[in-house]
Amino acid sequence: MFQDFDVASDPALGPPRVKALRQLMGQLGVHAVLVPRADEHQGEYVPANAERLAWLTGFTGSAGFAIIGLKTAALITDGRYTLQARVQVDSSTFEILDSTTPEWIAWVGRQMSSGQIVGFDPKLHAAQSIAALTADFAKHGLKLKALTKNPIDTIWGALRPKPAAGAVIVQPEALAGLSAADKIARVQQSLKIDRHDAVVLTLPDSIAWLLNIRGSDVAHNPVALAYAIVPLRGKVELFIAPEKINAEVKKHLGTVAKIAAPDTLSARLTELKANDGARVRVDPATASHWVVSKLGKAAQHGVDPCILPKARKTSAELDATRAAHIRDGVAVVRFLSWLDANAVDGHIDEITAAQKLEQCRSATNALKDISFDTISGSGPNGAIVHYRVNRETNRTLKSGELFLIDSGGQYQDGTTDITRTVAIGTPSREMADRFTLVLKGHIALAMARFPVGTRGVQLDTLARMALWQAGLDFDHGTGHGVGSYLSVHEGPQSISKRGMAALETGMIVSNEPGFYKEGAYGIRIENLLVVTPPQKVNGGDREMLGFETITLAPIDQRLIAVGLLDVSERGWLDQYHARVYKTLAPSMTGADKQWLHAATRPLVD
Amino acid sequence: MFQDFDVASDPALGPPRVKALRQLMGQLGVHAVLVPRADEHQGEYVPANAERLAWLTGFTGSAGFAIIGLKTAALITDGRYTLQARVQVDSSTFEILDSTTPEWIAWVGRQMSSGQIVGFDPKLHAAQSIAALTADFAKHGLKLKALTKNPIDTIWGALRPKPAAGAVIVQPEALAGLSAADKIARVQQSLKIDRHDAVVLTLPDSIAWLLNIRGSDVAHNPVALAYAIVPLRGKVELFIAPEKINAEVKKHLGTVAKIAAPDTLSARLTELKANDGARVRVDPATASHWVVSKLGKAAQHGVDPCILPKARKTSAELDATRAAHIRDGVAVVRFLSWLDANAVDGHIDEITAAQKLEQCRSATNALKDISFDTISGSGPNGAIVHYRVNRETNRTLKSGELFLIDSGGQYQDGTTDITRTVAIGTPSREMADRFTLVLKGHIALAMARFPVGTRGVQLDTLARMALWQAGLDFDHGTGHGVGSYLSVHEGPQSISKRGMAALETGMIVSNEPGFYKEGAYGIRIENLLVVTPPQKVNGGDREMLGFETITLAPIDQRLIAVGLLDVSERGWLDQYHARVYKTLAPSMTGADKQWLHAATRPLVD
Repeated sequence: MFQDFDVASDPALGPPRVKALRQLMGQLGVHAVLVPRADEHQGEYVPANAERLAWLTGFTGSAGFAIIGLKTAALITDGRYTLQARVQVDSSTFEILDSTTPEWIAWVGRQMSSGQIVGFDPKLHAAQSIAALTADFAKHGLKLKALTKNPIDTIWGALRPKPAAGAVIVQPEALAGLSAADKIARVQQSLKIDRHDAVVLTLPDSIAWLLNIRGSDVAHNPVALAYAIVPLRGKVELFIAPEKINAEVKKHLGTVAKIAAPDTLSARLTELKANDGARVRVDPATASHWVVSKLGKAAQHGVDPCILPKARKTSAELDATRAAHIRDGVAVVRFLSWLDANAVDGHIDEITAAQKLEQCRSATNALKDISFDTISGSGPNGAIVHYRVNRETNRTLKSGELFLIDSGGQYQDGTTDITRTVAIGTPSREMADRFTLVLKGHIALAMARFPVGTRGVQLDTLARMALWQAGLDFDHGTGHGVGSYLSVHEGPQSISKRGMAALETGMIVSNEPGFYKEGAYGIRIENLLVVTPPQKVNGGDREMLGFETITLAPIDQRLIAVGLLDVSERGWLDQYHARVYKTLAPSMTGADKQWLHAATRPLVD
Repeated sequence: MFQDFDVASDPALGPPRVKALRQLMGQLGVHAVLVPRADEHQGEYVPANAERLAWLTGFTGSAGFAIIGLKTAALITDGRYTLQARVQVDSSTFEILDSTTPEWIAWVGRQMSSGQIVGFDPKLHAAQSIAALTADFAKHGLKLKALTKNPIDTIWGALRPKPAAGAVIVQPEALAGLSAADKIARVQQSLKIDRHDAVVLTLPDSIAWLLNIRGSDVAHNPVALAYAIVPLRGKVELFIAPEKINAEVKKHLGTVAKIAAPDTLSARLTELKANDGARVRVDPATASHWVVSKLGKAAQHGVDPCILPKARKTSAELDATRAAHIRDGVAVVRFLSWLDANAVDGHIDEITAAQKLEQCRSATNALKDISFDTISGSGPNGAIVHYRVNRETNRTLKSGELFLIDSGGQYQDGTTDITRTVAIGTPSREMADRFTLVLKGHIALAMARFPVGTRGVQLDTLARMALWQAGLDFDHGTGHGVGSYLSVHEGPQSISKRGMAALETGMIVSNEPGFYKEGAYGIRIENLLVVTPPQKVNGGDREMLGFETITLAPIDQRLIAVGLLDVSERGWLDQYHARVYKTLAPSMTGADKQWLHAATRPLVD
């Protein structure tokens, strides 16, 4: 199983570790230390040896940081994790503060005196974050100091896990659609235009994309932790632990990259800087303060040149991901069929359901991992947007309630991400009305046509209009980018209030409006979309982009208030269901196939 | 009449003036000079003595600038004015370049040699523009030099018009809803929060709002050209020509402001800077390079503190503007009734129509000015978004064509802005289909509900959806902010791709989607909206903002393809028309009233 449902946290461990850290501060010449939940690559998932925040505080959320002063300490995270933090950390040691408002900085200002110093590990913070923090702390007379060795590592000592050493594999060109050499040539072209001598890549998924490799260093995201330098001409320098690379991978990389040990990066950055007039691109939004500082005056701020071409999928990647979505659709339908047959009797709980879904995906014999820990929430748990079930919160699915399950699979041909909300027994009128409003938003986005240059923020409204008119809304973005057997969350595209990147042909983005009634139920309907090429609309005068829905699984008709849909919305749903049946049915048999047939029938009033 | 339809430009005047300017450049130590279409206050309308660009080049568009080198010169403006520029300027002297792409900077780079210097008048360019230009020019090795005297003024000499000296009037507190003292107290509160000692105001409409005064220095925008300094405590310092102020205004200002001569501003800024540790707020987006430089290290960049409170209208301002819109609606209906009775016979041209509309507004005896030069475009002229008719382009309205008229009135109780598109004779099926798509967008925005914090960019899509689905779009924003007897274009609110400000209760914004078929016809439907306070929607769980449509005039039913409207859209239009009739009919008589009755009848299939 890829998901662990145990609650692995002991708040009692925090205080002695914090005490040890405080004893170290004097030696380090600092009055406080920052401990982020981050590795050197700013990834969503971090390897075990970078779980310093969890080790120190007990907090296992995916975002946050602690600041440990000489007498007080705080764990700072966002609203998703506030409740979890209260359970996991020792409340006599840590205040819990909200990272999304500047109030936590004022709190630090009150705890410390002007002139005092906050230490940080320069490899664990993006240069841009440190720049912002430097300005914020300066308002309180506080200074930041980059530490040469991470003080948590000093205390953790020999018990600290070894660095991840997951095996690297080759991502076949038939799936990627472009050779590594072609991709490198494009990046080098961008360096030429900007007159840069090189770019330092610090994001593992940029490196995985560029070199057509995948790794297994962290959970759910098939990347290899590594750094790379792409020079204006010649081979890429890949800084990666040699034990991750077998002979086949070595051969694949041989023509395009030189492999170097990770501990030689520091000297290489110093060497790059030393060239007179050197111009080395680095992305301050993601590259660490350490990397940018090492480059000194040679550092030229610019966007990681892999991000945009990685997001614009090739035809080969899109064909591959469509195949992955058919496979995944079959697994999801088998799960939904099983759920319908068993849940109403009260024998299924959230963990059982998540495990069953993982089994259905594993049975495809193509599952590499799940894309993220499954969100499996029944009744009121469904209303917690980022809910992760564990043995303590686990609930039995009950008749009259809704069940929300958000999950995905990592296959070598594609990454999936799907949410379905299912009625257990008969739903209330209110549930159906609100499900239908969410569905109207989902359909409005799925059917949208829009001109080249349209940004995600402009489309986000389509998914909310029906809810807004009814005085309702949801507090998360409508859609995130999705990788090709890479991260299930990737930029630059995003359909949200913050979605400033233009949507471009071939990008994959999720369509997942929702509605959450606290303490009662949650609704979310999520399919993945591909941005289709510009094309003339019949009778129109401009070429328009649009979306192709690639996720294939029925949407629960028991939750649809048919009278709230207009003709075009009904048409979209019936066509979608007909396509789901036609595409998946050939791979199904028996009761599951019968269930699919019934679940994809045309809407009836 | 407030509008002039003559073409007042002589390209032959350009070359000798450019020659004189070139002769001056050696003395000034520069190799080129920038000549913007701007005054010291970055206003949309400039006084006659600031029309340096028109004097030098013949170009009378409202945006653009020239750069005159030793041998070559260019006029740089945006797509709205490219055609006009080709007609108005001497093409052997000036290249015409597009200001919206960086290509013009590359052009300058090619004309000049590295190390050369471009002179500019530091009072005529915003500090932020000069900062951006400095970086752009540096890429070509060029430097900028602030000139102490404007070289155009030197050449223009005694023929240059005197500075504007329009009379100032008091804007009654009954219309403004807040006293000047209250407004100043709010600004001073904002200074206190930011620990600023003062703010320098350079925008005349900020000053007009703050002090409850209006002026008459430029066309269409009732502002007095002036500077002001608001100190943390005590009276505002108003730098304004004393001849603009009569005894009544002097008395009104006496309790809240000290009046100083404009030529004392320089010394005062120097004095402010001299205070040790002085912190003076200035808005680099609008304040000139000269003002910011004068303040030196004392300058603290921040937004003009009048902009946001000015945009959030008081209840008194909204009541006043509703009254202005009723008065204006009656005038517009009289015009439309006249148009319907006369246009089809081919006796009306674009100028006659614009003049008639101005007469209808003047007949209210409350018109202070029109809000902007009327856009009166028939047939293909309607497709030119920023068309201004003159005696050379003037067309007769013809049966089978569309006529687009975009106009507004300045009344002391409010500023109006309305566009109607009218069928002359029988429109084609295509015209009606596209008019109806535009109407659907107009209605979607008018009916929108949205949560607090929603920005204009998020709502812009509502006005475009129906067009996008048909493969159509329009190339301008959907809505701009509107002042209270102030500028017809005001920020920060905007419903457009660039609308990043949140819409707040009391803001006035236009709703003006359109469709333009080049060479054939233009369609635009524009009403003004007021953002309504947050309120619970029946059955909803969140308070939602919304819009009240305050413009009152019929929308041409002959152009509506009723079958394309859904039930709620028909409902909106019928209710709107019923309200237009009910509100305006009591002020109308005879044929005009009959026409209004027919024009506002419920839709029939």
